[in-house]
Amino acid sequence: MIPSEQAYQITQSINFRTGKEKVPLGQLIGRVLAEDIFSDINMPPFNKSAMDGFACRAEDILNPLEIIEIIPAGKTPEKIIGKNQAAKIMTGAPVPQGANCVFMVEESKMTENNTVFYQSAKTGVDICTVSGHIKKGTNVVNLGQDIRTGDKIMSKGTFIKPQHIAALASVGCILPEVYKYPRVGVLATGSELVEPNIQPNKSQIRNSNGSQMLAQLAAIGIAGTYYGIAEDTQEKTQELLQKAVNENDIVLISGGVSMGDFDYVPVIMKALGFDILFDRVAVQPGKPITFAVGKNKFLFGMPGNPVSSFVQFELLAKPFIYKLMNANIQQKELYLPLNEDYKRKKTVRLGWVPVAINADGTVSKVKYNGSAHLGGLLVADALMAIPIGINSLKKGDKVYVRQI
Amino acid sequence: MIPSEQAYQITQSINFRTGKEKVPLGQLIGRVLAEDIFSDINMPPFNKSAMDGFACRAEDILNPLEIIEIIPAGKTPEKIIGKNQAAKIMTGAPVPQGANCVFMVEESKMTENNTVFYQSAKTGVDICTVSGHIKKGTNVVNLGQDIRTGDKIMSKGTFIKPQHIAALASVGCILPEVYKYPRVGVLATGSELVEPNIQPNKSQIRNSNGSQMLAQLAAIGIAGTYYGIAEDTQEKTQELLQKAVNENDIVLISGGVSMGDFDYVPVIMKALGFDILFDRVAVQPGKPITFAVGKNKFLFGMPGNPVSSFVQFELLAKPFIYKLMNANIQQKELYLPLNEDYKRKKTVRLGWVPVAINADGTVSKVKYNGSAHLGGLLVADALMAIPIGINSLKKGDKVYVRQI
Repeated sequence: MIPSEQAYQITQSINFRTGKEKVPLGQLIGRVLAEDIFSDINMPPFNKSAMDGFACRAEDILNPLEIIEIIPAGKTPEKIIGKNQAAKIMTGAPVPQGANCVFMVEESKMTENNTVFYQSAKTGVDICTVSGHIKKGTNVVNLGQDIRTGDKIMSKGTFIKPQHIAALASVGCILPEVYKYPRVGVLATGSELVEPNIQPNKSQIRNSNGSQMLAQLAAIGIAGTYYGIAEDTQEKTQELLQKAVNENDIVLISGGVSMGDFDYVPVIMKALGFDILFDRVAVQPGKPITFAVGKNKFLFGMPGNPVSSFVQFELLAKPFIYKLMNANIQQKELYLPLNEDYKRKKTVRLGWVPVAINADGTVSKVKYNGSAHLGGLLVADALMAIPIGINSLKKGDKVYVRQI
Repeated sequence: MIPSEQAYQITQSINFRTGKEKVPLGQLIGRVLAEDIFSDINMPPFNKSAMDGFACRAEDILNPLEIIEIIPAGKTPEKIIGKNQAAKIMTGAPVPQGANCVFMVEESKMTENNTVFYQSAKTGVDICTVSGHIKKGTNVVNLGQDIRTGDKIMSKGTFIKPQHIAALASVGCILPEVYKYPRVGVLATGSELVEPNIQPNKSQIRNSNGSQMLAQLAAIGIAGTYYGIAEDTQEKTQELLQKAVNENDIVLISGGVSMGDFDYVPVIMKALGFDILFDRVAVQPGKPITFAVGKNKFLFGMPGNPVSSFVQFELLAKPFIYKLMNANIQQKELYLPLNEDYKRKKTVRLGWVPVAINADGTVSKVKYNGSAHLGGLLVADALMAIPIGINSLKKGDKVYVRQI
């Protein structure tokens, strides 16, 4: 049995990386950039008005101003603003030459002869008038102020979320190179298992880990391939695993890795030429987990209990998948206050307990009978870590939680 | 201008709900249950061994035990355990009649004549032996201990995550009824816009909001329909919006809702028979947002600046979509300590500032020039709320963050 951190480091030290492919802008969520992205434009590309209003020289702000042009967004200004002149301007439009500020339409007063005055707003709620006057640069966003042509806006390894898409669109990056998803196969072992569509007899249970692993993969964008429940002989199981290995980069095998007479998955892994790098991790739940490495092929022998399998997917398999995709993801540490006391008996393993995060940001226990108890997961928002050697936590203690 | 909370309540008080459909187990992530789910089985379905080991009567634990049967998982035991008898048993297998405990294989010693002794483990790291002895019930999970036949395991309104899948599989729920996704159309207005694949001229910018809104929809499982950039006449825009309204439940329109001469989106909304329920919200960024309601049709006039649009999608559009799907989602409140001072000038609106969450769980500012500055979003993990009336926060203050 090795510590959790060591198991993590072993999986993270694997050098294999998935290949690259080009993926269109509309399909990038959850992908990992395989190239740095540079801007081909200045943002804004011109001195831009941040408001609907009037562009003029700040030094003329107290004078009546002659309106010499109207500049909607998208139009290139045709005139130069001189002394006591203004252009009516829309949000996003280029500020004309000569002008150095914009005052808002809400703070303007028009007269009949095409003249406008600046007036402080009376509502007291507008951005620009709390300070009560207009200065050079007010409501003008300067050319290149946000991003300059040639700037690196995103780095290789970035895990793409919705907040990255507008920037990619803005710089015209419509088909970036990303790392491919690894191909992941899923199979289950266990002669007590029947598929979810079957009514189990009295010594059987339905295979829940298969669907769960596929769902955990789907949640990170991967369409795993399901190979079913292996028949209960070593030969048949080996045949099925060989097929899954041939067709995938990673195979997740549920069950068959504990100490029962019929748990021959480790034997089969070796027969297929894999090296087992670990087979017990000091984590509760999730101790019986095997990680085996072949020639650019990787096996996880996942625990048979569904909560254990869920936890180890989150702790080891998912970060491993991201590593193969070269994702630069930092696990956010999050410590929240416990709202009741917590006790456990055994302290030899790192505990991960399903917990609820309450509306006030505190953490509560949920009913949880152990690693086969799916009810615990159903109401959990996070897993709470209980370090080795610790058997009790007090109300108010900050606990490390990993959101699920 | 109405407070943010009021805008939220207005959108959340809409009564329209999407229809229902049956969706297979493999495609449920992100869907919302439209029915309560009950268990058709006990879990475990029998008194189950939690370990590989030997099942016997606890009262015989100190005696040599005759092994009368081997019970792999999936097998129904054939014999009854009597005094000083045991069955070799695998994890997940039914505990035979007569037996009331299981001791682990690691704690056993076999003799030649098919007899086994219980022995305390020597490693000191196993679950069952720290207390040093076996009692009635040790390593046995009782029939129905986790879930009983007929129990409601999940409620209508549950937003399905990977942690729900194993339970659905276990109870044979392979095609539950869920709420349909709303149909969502996306269109942009703004004569300064060109599509991301076009090289903008010097008064143009690329349309980034369209791709961003589609990505925000995709992140919650919805394939939005994109209608492009409306041509810059009221007639053409109205025609395009009418088409989008006809084909969708919700239409997100980017831009065209501020105070410029060419911002006729509100006029068009009214012309199409929509009631505008609000058009300014006291949020920064994101003030110019319009919400309009027709006959089971809903329009969001989203702000033109990409950061504003991103924020308002998160604050209003996304929760509205979940509401139409009857999702019972509670926004988790999360307060994290700021690791540096923060100041702002204007305090009349609720501020949402892009921030980074550090590895230690503290919150840092990111470079952010305002609502058009996409660079801020690129490095943000969350939005930090700054309440109305507050202009400064101190290092160490707990700030409310919403993860993105």
